[in-house]
Amino acid sequence: MVSVRFEPDGRECTVPAGTLVSDAAHEAGLSLHLPCAGRGRCGKCRVNVVSGEVSAPEPAEVAALTAEELAAGVRLSCQAKVAGDVVVQLPPEAHVVGTKSLNGDLVRPVALDPEARQVPLALGKPSLEDQRSDFDRVADALAATVPDLHGCPAALGMLSSELRKGDFQITAALVGSRLVDVVAGDEPPRTYGAAVDIGTTTVVVYLTNLLTGELVSAAAAYNEQGRHGADVISRIEHCNKNGSGLNQMRQLAIQSINGALAEALGRCECGAEDIYEVTVVGNTAMAHLFIGMDPRHLAEAPYVPVSVRAQALRPAEAGLSMHPRGNVFVLPSIAGFVGADTVGVLLATDIAERGHPVLAVDIGTNGELALWSGKELLVASCAAGPAFEGAQLEFGMRAAPGAIERVCIGTDDIEVSTIGDRPVAGICGSGLFDAMAVLLELGVVEPSGRFREDELPPDVPEAIRRRLVGEGRERRFLLGDVDAGCPVCLSQGDVRELQLAKGAVKAAADLLLQEAGLKADELGEVLLAGAFGNYINPLSAMRMGLLPTVPTERIRGVGNAAGAGALLALLSREERRRAVELARGARHLELSRRPEFQMAFMETILFP
Amino acid sequence: MVSVRFEPDGRECTVPAGTLVSDAAHEAGLSLHLPCAGRGRCGKCRVNVVSGEVSAPEPAEVAALTAEELAAGVRLSCQAKVAGDVVVQLPPEAHVVGTKSLNGDLVRPVALDPEARQVPLALGKPSLEDQRSDFDRVADALAATVPDLHGCPAALGMLSSELRKGDFQITAALVGSRLVDVVAGDEPPRTYGAAVDIGTTTVVVYLTNLLTGELVSAAAAYNEQGRHGADVISRIEHCNKNGSGLNQMRQLAIQSINGALAEALGRCECGAEDIYEVTVVGNTAMAHLFIGMDPRHLAEAPYVPVSVRAQALRPAEAGLSMHPRGNVFVLPSIAGFVGADTVGVLLATDIAERGHPVLAVDIGTNGELALWSGKELLVASCAAGPAFEGAQLEFGMRAAPGAIERVCIGTDDIEVSTIGDRPVAGICGSGLFDAMAVLLELGVVEPSGRFREDELPPDVPEAIRRRLVGEGRERRFLLGDVDAGCPVCLSQGDVRELQLAKGAVKAAADLLLQEAGLKADELGEVLLAGAFGNYINPLSAMRMGLLPTVPTERIRGVGNAAGAGALLALLSREERRRAVELARGARHLELSRRPEFQMAFMETILFP
Repeated sequence: MVSVRFEPDGRECTVPAGTLVSDAAHEAGLSLHLPCAGRGRCGKCRVNVVSGEVSAPEPAEVAALTAEELAAGVRLSCQAKVAGDVVVQLPPEAHVVGTKSLNGDLVRPVALDPEARQVPLALGKPSLEDQRSDFDRVADALAATVPDLHGCPAALGMLSSELRKGDFQITAALVGSRLVDVVAGDEPPRTYGAAVDIGTTTVVVYLTNLLTGELVSAAAAYNEQGRHGADVISRIEHCNKNGSGLNQMRQLAIQSINGALAEALGRCECGAEDIYEVTVVGNTAMAHLFIGMDPRHLAEAPYVPVSVRAQALRPAEAGLSMHPRGNVFVLPSIAGFVGADTVGVLLATDIAERGHPVLAVDIGTNGELALWSGKELLVASCAAGPAFEGAQLEFGMRAAPGAIERVCIGTDDIEVSTIGDRPVAGICGSGLFDAMAVLLELGVVEPSGRFREDELPPDVPEAIRRRLVGEGRERRFLLGDVDAGCPVCLSQGDVRELQLAKGAVKAAADLLLQEAGLKADELGEVLLAGAFGNYINPLSAMRMGLLPTVPTERIRGVGNAAGAGALLALLSREERRRAVELARGARHLELSRRPEFQMAFMETILFP
Repeated sequence: MVSVRFEPDGRECTVPAGTLVSDAAHEAGLSLHLPCAGRGRCGKCRVNVVSGEVSAPEPAEVAALTAEELAAGVRLSCQAKVAGDVVVQLPPEAHVVGTKSLNGDLVRPVALDPEARQVPLALGKPSLEDQRSDFDRVADALAATVPDLHGCPAALGMLSSELRKGDFQITAALVGSRLVDVVAGDEPPRTYGAAVDIGTTTVVVYLTNLLTGELVSAAAAYNEQGRHGADVISRIEHCNKNGSGLNQMRQLAIQSINGALAEALGRCECGAEDIYEVTVVGNTAMAHLFIGMDPRHLAEAPYVPVSVRAQALRPAEAGLSMHPRGNVFVLPSIAGFVGADTVGVLLATDIAERGHPVLAVDIGTNGELALWSGKELLVASCAAGPAFEGAQLEFGMRAAPGAIERVCIGTDDIEVSTIGDRPVAGICGSGLFDAMAVLLELGVVEPSGRFREDELPPDVPEAIRRRLVGEGRERRFLLGDVDAGCPVCLSQGDVRELQLAKGAVKAAADLLLQEAGLKADELGEVLLAGAFGNYINPLSAMRMGLLPTVPTERIRGVGNAAGAGALLALLSREERRRAVELARGARHLELSRRPEFQMAFMETILFP
């Protein structure tokens, strides 16, 4: 056994010699991001071996790293194996998990009426004239609001003693119509709930006091499934690989949620046993993996889910650390690639009640679009590919320190800002949109998507002109410090990736509008959900031709609307019913079988 | 550690020196009957120490046993402690558990429609035109019969692969509206159910093939709670004694049921995982202890149960060895001393549909009575005491080999028959009724309940006359072989016990008739349920004045009608609904608060 320490956190573990560095990191409680599922292809899981002995570089590392890097101890954590005691330095972005911001506006003022609630009851005492059972006494008092009250053995076990301890004044804990706890007196015990958004990359938890409706804490953790691939399809493939793959994926989702829950709990005075309910959103595949449903048929035509219905789970079934008699409610999905996360967005944005036609767009690896036409709710999905999140691009990276997040044209040069004001290390989603818009604005990239072959016109500042370098397929636009030799750029290949992605999204949006008989300018709003919506500059998205052409002020980022939807369903039973109705009422357009989609795509692939 | 062997079974165990013989028996898997809960009072748990060293006799043993007995190795198993390796001979009645006979007539021909069922489904295949989820496909096919179908994670987990393995022909296992299993093809897997009657003394299990409705096997086991007392009140007291008493009692009930289940399963080809549902009846206290509800308030005024409603439990909650996603359904009770066993009797006898007023009587330690007046269902209970079961009587014993089961007046002497034609060892319930009738018939006991003080008339055969021996409080009537010095008898004290018990039952019956405005001869039938009803001679019961005066042919034993009711609820959802309606519609008369009860009792205590 050898010991491995990871800096800057100082976390340690002891593992057999020959263990992959990425596995050792996991053992030490660190969640490394392995976009290509550890195949050594993407080169994104670089670490620096500071001291100690590791295996000789694998061919994948030799291909991905320069000789200087290898000499300096840079390795791919999914390839290098520890050979003795080692100290490994993780790059800043490797272990940073950010809590997606929850847009407070989206949590509409709803009447607090959660599924999990505490009801004080002052009951009459039994006598020979009134021999009703203890439970009937409670049920009769609740008959008007909970006509189908039923007990569980644990609550029935404590009922008679608490009733008498409290002199027939008790507080009853209900989850739906199930009596789950009873305490003497009228002081309700701590009652919390958690809304969970299982993202493909990140799991976010919002912890809420269900007695007051107050959001008390939030936490995020990497989705541990990431070690089997950044995207949904890799994870589905992992499930297919062997008999236990699905259960592994399910356990990793559970671990990730429990980890985020523990972190959120660590910041307040409540404990896991005070969490009476957890509501869950996620895309259809994430919901499948969490519930334990085989997702393989999501990935192949005709793209059939096992179930898209809302699902209630007992805590033990769900594997979550919470009150043992609580409830776990997974919001419904709509179709194989229009998931409970979209339903959360529809609910949080109250899409059908905004007084005008609305297009809501949530883009990650997969694009999910919903259109409220004024009469009908239409939904569709498209494969956007991971380009928008920076994956598969030469210098793409996650939104972590050093990532370019903003680019604009200044007076003498382009202006570039990075997360944490660090030296340019790569480019993340929001920077990408800006960079693409700048390239189009400057004419570096033509509407066809090809890089300009000749030099930029002389009225363009010299500092910008010298950023366009290389020939033919090597043509690229440098984004970093040219003098310092910073190689970070957008290449022809990168632009093609973006072009495919934006074309798919725009074609889907156009087809939804066409199906509804609407023109783009009839849209009262275009809502951008998710991290995507939070950070990108709507002007850049418009410049790229990603969205239908509407006045810019109608474009609005709505933050983690999926999570906000889960929170609404947690706080209000009425909202939960609405979520189920929204999912049931939505009409799904399967674009892959529509010849119009390919036609539309051929047009939308061009830049404006 | 010392080794203890029990004969005649040869079962063995190893226990620390100082262990009670009764505890060692339990350790060896033998269930000894301890009517006084091991207090050393009743002297019923005699065993014979054949060889080896045990502790010196305790005062309770010196009081209960003769010097000869002690010298011969007879000891009380609840007092004697093992000191070295010993061999203990158990008396025949100590380890015999009989399966109460199920009266086949009572399992009415109901349409087989169990809560747990297998439904073959031939489904259309998905296409891009029909992208319904797998679950929706199943739910749509079942919509007409199961409008609220919902899945559990395990079934959803296997759904997609079984569907495709069976080319969209599957068999769905449902428990209520819950989809719990799916298998490819149209061959239903083995599907069994068990009806359980938790008696205070004996737990009986009826194992049924739910695909055919056929009763495949039955088994009985002692209720292991018996080690904490033969009667309900001792067991309730045990729960009060310490914090874990209730859970101990619950675990013992579970053990007993699982033991009987295992025995029933041992006789057929199915396994525990094939049991999809278990229905349970028992008196209110037994139902409390099984569910884990605190029974203490049943035993003190105003006799309030925790709950009398029907209760559904998950197998894990119930602790039963069965299909993990099956269901456990406890039938409803009516009041503190009118339990689910009575509801089972009401259901099995179809009491309200027999075309005339009916009185149903189930007597054990407690008497439970139900009267269908033709318009209304009235129920009541009375404390009958354990006399009818032979407990607390000087020579009372359980229905085991050597127990007198029949007594009648012959030409020269009384005629006595014992179970198994063994030498007279004591007297059990059915023998008791006959003996009491004989004593009244002969004039040995006067209507007041006092023994005749002078000799029997000379026309009574000499052999009978010499059976009446002793003076004053020692007056008694010998039942065994007088010449051989057999001491088994009915004493003045025994008669008083019986008198109190029959007075209570008769007073309850009279009050029910009075409340309904009926006269005894308006009763179309008097049904005797339970072991009681199976074995006693109706003429003897009538002679004792236990029952309202009706023509003898209207008295009918209905066997284990409680168990038959549990079986009906297992076989038919309609019958289950009727059980719930019967329990809800019954009006309970609390006799203890009625001055009329004491009045009636003063009259009914006299023999006719």
